[in-house]
Amino acid sequence: MTGSYSLLVADLIGVAVFAASGASAAVAKRLDLFGVAFVGFVAALGGGILRDLVIGAVPPLAFADWRYALVAIAAALATFWLHPQLNRLRRTVLLLDAAGLGLFTVTGTLKAVHAGVPPVGACLVGMLTAIGGGLARDLLTGEIPVVLQREIYAIVALGGAVAVSVLSWLDVADSVTLAAAAAAMTGVRLIALRRRWSAPVAVP
Amino acid sequence: MTGSYSLLVADLIGVAVFAASGASAAVAKRLDLFGVAFVGFVAALGGGILRDLVIGAVPPLAFADWRYALVAIAAALATFWLHPQLNRLRRTVLLLDAAGLGLFTVTGTLKAVHAGVPPVGACLVGMLTAIGGGLARDLLTGEIPVVLQREIYAIVALGGAVAVSVLSWLDVADSVTLAAAAAAMTGVRLIALRRRWSAPVAVP
Amino acid sequence: MTGSYSLLVADLIGVAVFAASGASAAVAKRLDLFGVAFVGFVAALGGGILRDLVIGAVPPLAFADWRYALVAIAAALATFWLHPQLNRLRRTVLLLDAAGLGLFTVTGTLKAVHAGVPPVGACLVGMLTAIGGGLARDLLTGEIPVVLQREIYAIVALGGAVAVSVLSWLDVADSVTLAAAAAAMTGVRLIALRRRWSAPVAVP
Repeated sequence: MTGSYSLLVADLIGVAVFAASGASAAVAKRLDLFGVAFVGFVAALGGGILRDLVIGAVPPLAFADWRYALVAIAAALATFWLHPQLNRLRRTVLLLDAAGLGLFTVTGTLKAVHAGVPPVGACLVGMLTAIGGGLARDLLTGEIPVVLQREIYAIVALGGAVAVSVLSWLDVADSVTLAAAAAAMTGVRLIALRRRWSAPVAVP
Repeated sequence: MTGSYSLLVADLIGVAVFAASGASAAVAKRLDLFGVAFVGFVAALGGGILRDLVIGAVPPLAFADWRYALVAIAAALATFWLHPQLNRLRRTVLLLDAAGLGLFTVTGTLKAVHAGVPPVGACLVGMLTAIGGGLARDLLTGEIPVVLQREIYAIVALGGAVAVSVLSWLDVADSVTLAAAAAAMTGVRLIALRRRWSAPVAVP
Repeated sequence: MTGSYSLLVADLIGVAVFAASGASAAVAKRLDLFGVAFVGFVAALGGGILRDLVIGAVPPLAFADWRYALVAIAAALATFWLHPQLNRLRRTVLLLDAAGLGLFTVTGTLKAVHAGVPPVGACLVGMLTAIGGGLARDLLTGEIPVVLQREIYAIVALGGAVAVSVLSWLDVADSVTLAAAAAAMTGVRLIALRRRWSAPVAVP
C-alpha cells in the first residue's frame, strides 16, 4: 500500500517535470495557451500512452486515471505563467528530469514484463516509455528530436531497462533494488550532463 | 434506426470536410496524387483511429467500415482536381469544418464513455478525436500544428466534450441534447472565427 | 515449416534493408549513434508496429520476437560504420528495398485478412505496413515524407495489397501465388525507378 503510494507520488513527479519540459519548449515556440497545455500533456504522458498501447493496456493510464492528466496540465499551465522564473530553477529541473528518466524506465519496463512481453521487447518498451514523450514534444514543435542528436539520455534508459529486466528475471525486483536502479540511472544521467558526454556521430 | 442513419450521414460529412482540408494542405505543399489522397485520409480519419486505439476498438472504424475510407479518399481526390474552385467555397468549407468539429467531438466523447473510459479521460479522447486528424495533417506536411498556435478550436472541442460527459453522466444524452451540444460547438467556433478570438501566448 | 522459415528469412531481409535506409537518412542528418540505431529500428519496424496495433495483435511482433529488433539494430549499426561503402551498393540496396516493399505488403495484407479486417481495410493496412516505416523515418529526420511527394512506391503497395486481398478472397493465396504477387510488386517498383515514373501533382 505505502509502496504503491510512493510509486504513484514518484510517478506524478516525473509527469510534472516532463510536462514542464514540454511546456517550456512550447512557450519558446510561441504556441498559445492551449498549445502549451497540449505539448506539456504529450511530453509527460506520450511515452506512457505508447507503452500502454503496445502492451494492450487500454485505455492507457493517462486516460484511465485523472490524476495523471490533471498533474500534467497543471504543471504545463504553471510553466505558461511562471516560465521566466523557471530559468532560475534550471538545475532543479535537470535534476528532476534525470529522476523522471530513471523512474519512467523502471515502471515502463516492469509493466511490460508483467504484461508478458519477452525480455528484449520489455527493454525496448521501458526505454520508449522514458523517451517517447520527449520525442513527441520535439516533433510537435517542429524539431528533430534532441534525444536522437546528442546527449547520453536514451542509452541510460536502455541500460536501466536491461538492469530491470535482469532483476525481474532473477526474481529480485523488489522496491529496494528497483529504487537503486532508478537512482543509478539518475546518477549516470547527471554525470553525463556534467561531463558533457555524448555519443559518437558517423564519420562523413 | 433513422437516428443511427442520420449519425452515419453526419459523420461522413465530417469525414469529407476534414479530408478536403487535408488534401488542400497537401496540394499547397505540391505533394503528388498519392500524397494528397493519403494526407486527406489521415486528416479525416486520424483522430478516429487514435480514439479507437485508445479505447481498444480494433480494427478502428476507418479500417472496419469501407464507407469511411471511400468518402475520405473520394473527397481528397475531388480536392486534387477541383481545388481552384474550392477557394470560392471557402466560407462553406469553414462552416462544414465547424460542423465536423462539433460532430466528431460528440461521437468521440460518447464512444469513450461507452467503452468505460472515466470522465476526464473521455473528455480528452473526445477532444483528440476532433483535433487528431488536423494535428497529423500538419505534421505530415512539415508544419507546427496550427491548432497549437492560434485560433479557438481545440478549446471548443474540450468544452463540448465536457458538456457531453455531463449530459451522459446525468443520463440525458439523447439525440436532441447531443445535437444541441454539437450545434453549440459549431456556433461558438463560427463566432470565434468571425471575431478573430485567439488564446493568449506567454509573455516572453 | 520450411515455408514459414522462408517467410521469416525473407521478412528479416526486408527488416535489414529498411533499417539500413533509415540509418542512412539518420547519418546524413548527423544524428548520433543512438539516433542512427533508433531511426533504423523505426524505419524497419514502424510499419509492422502500426499494423499490429490496428489489428489488435499486442504486443506487436517487433517487441514479441527479439530477432526482429536484433536484425534492425544490427543493420542500423552496420550502416553507421560502413555507410561510405553503402554508396557503392546503391543499386543492391534499391533492389532489396523493392523486394522489401513487395514482401511487407504481402505479409501485412495477409495478417490483416486473417485478423478479420474487411477487404478495403485490409488493403489499407497492407499498404501502411509497407510505407509506415519510411513515413516515420522521414518525420523523425525533419522531412516531409518522400513517399507523399514523388515516386511510384505506395501505389505499388496499394495495388499489391488489392491483389493479395483478391487472391485471399478466391481462396488461392498459397505460397506460390503470394510469392508471385510480391515478385510482381518488386518488378513494377524497379521499372518505375528505371523509367522515372511519377504520380501527377495538382495544377496550381
